[in-house]
Amino acid sequence: MSVTAAQGFTAAGIAAGIKESGGLDLALVVNQGPRLAAAGVFTANRVKAAPVLWSQQVLRGGQVAAVVLNSGGANACTGPEGFRDTHATAEKAGEVLGVSAGEVAVASTGLIGVRLPMDRLLPGIEKAASELSPHSGEKAAIAIKTTDTVHKTAVAKGDGWTVGGMAKGAGMLAPGLATMLVVLTTDADVDAAGLDEALRGATRTTFDRVDSDGCMSTNDTVLLLASGASGITPAPEAFAEAVRAVCDDLARQLIGDAEGASKDIRIEVINAASEDDAVEVGRSIARNNLLKCAIHGEDPNWGRVLSAIGTTSAAFDPDRLNVAINDVWVCRNGSVGDDRDLVDMRYREVRITADLAEGDASAVIWANDLTADYVHENSAYSS
Amino acid sequence: MSVTAAQGFTAAGIAAGIKESGGLDLALVVNQGPRLAAAGVFTANRVKAAPVLWSQQVLRGGQVAAVVLNSGGANACTGPEGFRDTHATAEKAGEVLGVSAGEVAVASTGLIGVRLPMDRLLPGIEKAASELSPHSGEKAAIAIKTTDTVHKTAVAKGDGWTVGGMAKGAGMLAPGLATMLVVLTTDADVDAAGLDEALRGATRTTFDRVDSDGCMSTNDTVLLLASGASGITPAPEAFAEAVRAVCDDLARQLIGDAEGASKDIRIEVINAASEDDAVEVGRSIARNNLLKCAIHGEDPNWGRVLSAIGTTSAAFDPDRLNVAINDVWVCRNGSVGDDRDLVDMRYREVRITADLAEGDASAVIWANDLTADYVHENSAYSS
Repeated sequence: MSVTAAQGFTAAGIAAGIKESGGLDLALVVNQGPRLAAAGVFTANRVKAAPVLWSQQVLRGGQVAAVVLNSGGANACTGPEGFRDTHATAEKAGEVLGVSAGEVAVASTGLIGVRLPMDRLLPGIEKAASELSPHSGEKAAIAIKTTDTVHKTAVAKGDGWTVGGMAKGAGMLAPGLATMLVVLTTDADVDAAGLDEALRGATRTTFDRVDSDGCMSTNDTVLLLASGASGITPAPEAFAEAVRAVCDDLARQLIGDAEGASKDIRIEVINAASEDDAVEVGRSIARNNLLKCAIHGEDPNWGRVLSAIGTTSAAFDPDRLNVAINDVWVCRNGSVGDDRDLVDMRYREVRITADLAEGDASAVIWANDLTADYVHENSAYSS
Repeated sequence: MSVTAAQGFTAAGIAAGIKESGGLDLALVVNQGPRLAAAGVFTANRVKAAPVLWSQQVLRGGQVAAVVLNSGGANACTGPEGFRDTHATAEKAGEVLGVSAGEVAVASTGLIGVRLPMDRLLPGIEKAASELSPHSGEKAAIAIKTTDTVHKTAVAKGDGWTVGGMAKGAGMLAPGLATMLVVLTTDADVDAAGLDEALRGATRTTFDRVDSDGCMSTNDTVLLLASGASGITPAPEAFAEAVRAVCDDLARQLIGDAEGASKDIRIEVINAASEDDAVEVGRSIARNNLLKCAIHGEDPNWGRVLSAIGTTSAAFDPDRLNVAINDVWVCRNGSVGDDRDLVDMRYREVRITADLAEGDASAVIWANDLTADYVHENSAYSS
């Protein structure tokens, strides 16, 4: 499973001593080819961590031979020294693996504004290289966890080819990608341009539409590596759908494990004039702290949904808005609808449907509730 | 003090039975002239409560003889019936006071999506009218409270003239105005155009720059009424400054009483390329839930400040950003600055300074931290 579900990939997950806990904190994913094609999507945050700046350069070449990922430190806001640390990481991996440093992507997650302990990280790369195996995909997925309570992997099977992947991310999830590090691998024989198209199409409606707490990370990285080891070039639609399925699965796992959350909120905006309108309204609802508190309290507070819709620039008439919570239309025509006592909110998944009554576009955004546990976790954790 | 500090105004605050608690819930403010000039600023939320829609119409005439305010119900998202309720409120006040209903502004606050108990509200107007007094400004300020723990009043004295006011608001504070009802009165002899200019100038840098929780209300209303009773027409600059001072005082009181907050955060953005950039960056910082949690935990987490700046469209170079927390420059040139252990965060007020190093524009935004108490209060309170 994980990043080694597809043929042509090995991985390792080891404890390099970056985390004070002594837990697994360094992952290595190696593409053994024959193809080394790759595509990447990165945070839209203009304050980007050193590994993001580095990996963006690497991806311009369309080839990735290996990915080094560490938890325990984001290497963000660390200045030129931080960039040199990332460069040294790629150089070390290139040397140990016998590949060009320019084909080694790097991803980091953890505290912002702290230098990485290079005296531990560099020997860790040697150790990880010595443990590379096609059976260590799960260990790699464990090594990239920070506040994640579980590791996240997914796989989709095509006709003779496979897409697999791993993800980490539990806080700072937001549009423009979240604090998520995601590595997807495939043995399909697809070139860099084909990977790029499939990956951008997939992230646009999956990772880009989860919004746990409205906060955008400096480190988000989603990579898709192809080994071509299956020798099969799938139809572009089938390949795109497999990548989308794996991204969707991982994105839902991120929401399901968001820091302190007690509810997963599926916000579907329907009958919007455009998809952009639907996404804007969905995000506004997803980020409304008062609504997120109400959902936590199992209170079907549709007034807060309308209040959030009202702050957008989307096309709508306030007197024609309809809102359902768990399929009960508690707001009709901008006013009181069906009895709110009919709404059963005991379960973790809560569905909000916002009908803009303007057109036929729609979008789904996933979010979480706002809880005292979220506050406690993020008051104490300096990241 | 309050709305009766200026000559020519009477007020009342009574219990009409709108609130289940039996507390004061209906306020009346009457301008006895000789002038009845008025200006108003309302929520930018496109989902507007019935009293906002009504009062916007009233203010177009530039004359307000009286304001009826109620707590215990927002009369928002109540459809055509809700608008009729507001109309009936103005008609009743007009009839009792012998003025035109078209010169009676109405403001409501409380639950969204619930009709007001008109069988109690209308008799309440008669009762309030019978208790009008130039000494009841404080009672009026108490009657508009919802989750406010204290009532809020302020006054500024000119040379022979006065500006006074009252405010309510404890949650949903956000740009574009907050769930705030504010009535300002003055005995200065200023026409509607002069009031409008002073009021818009004042709210732009005061109420529009407090952001407790990023949520914009359906009911925000700020009114400024002039009686002209002092017979003095102040210099426009002096009048504008007095209005600004009262608004600033009340805005700070709103932040100081925000739901569940334990910190008041003063965010000053300096050296921005434009004031718009400064405000955009300030709001992004003010709304970052992770940062708000960190401040609650007294953690000078400047990485979260940079991460918030990075999501804006403002002009800046990530490698030239500087951030101070309580005057300690913990981030210099986008990287680690002075020792974060030097930052003392024990006190309620926390100052964040973000230096964009691009120009000479600046702005101050006030915000609050995010606490478990905020979550508890807003999980249980359906508003």
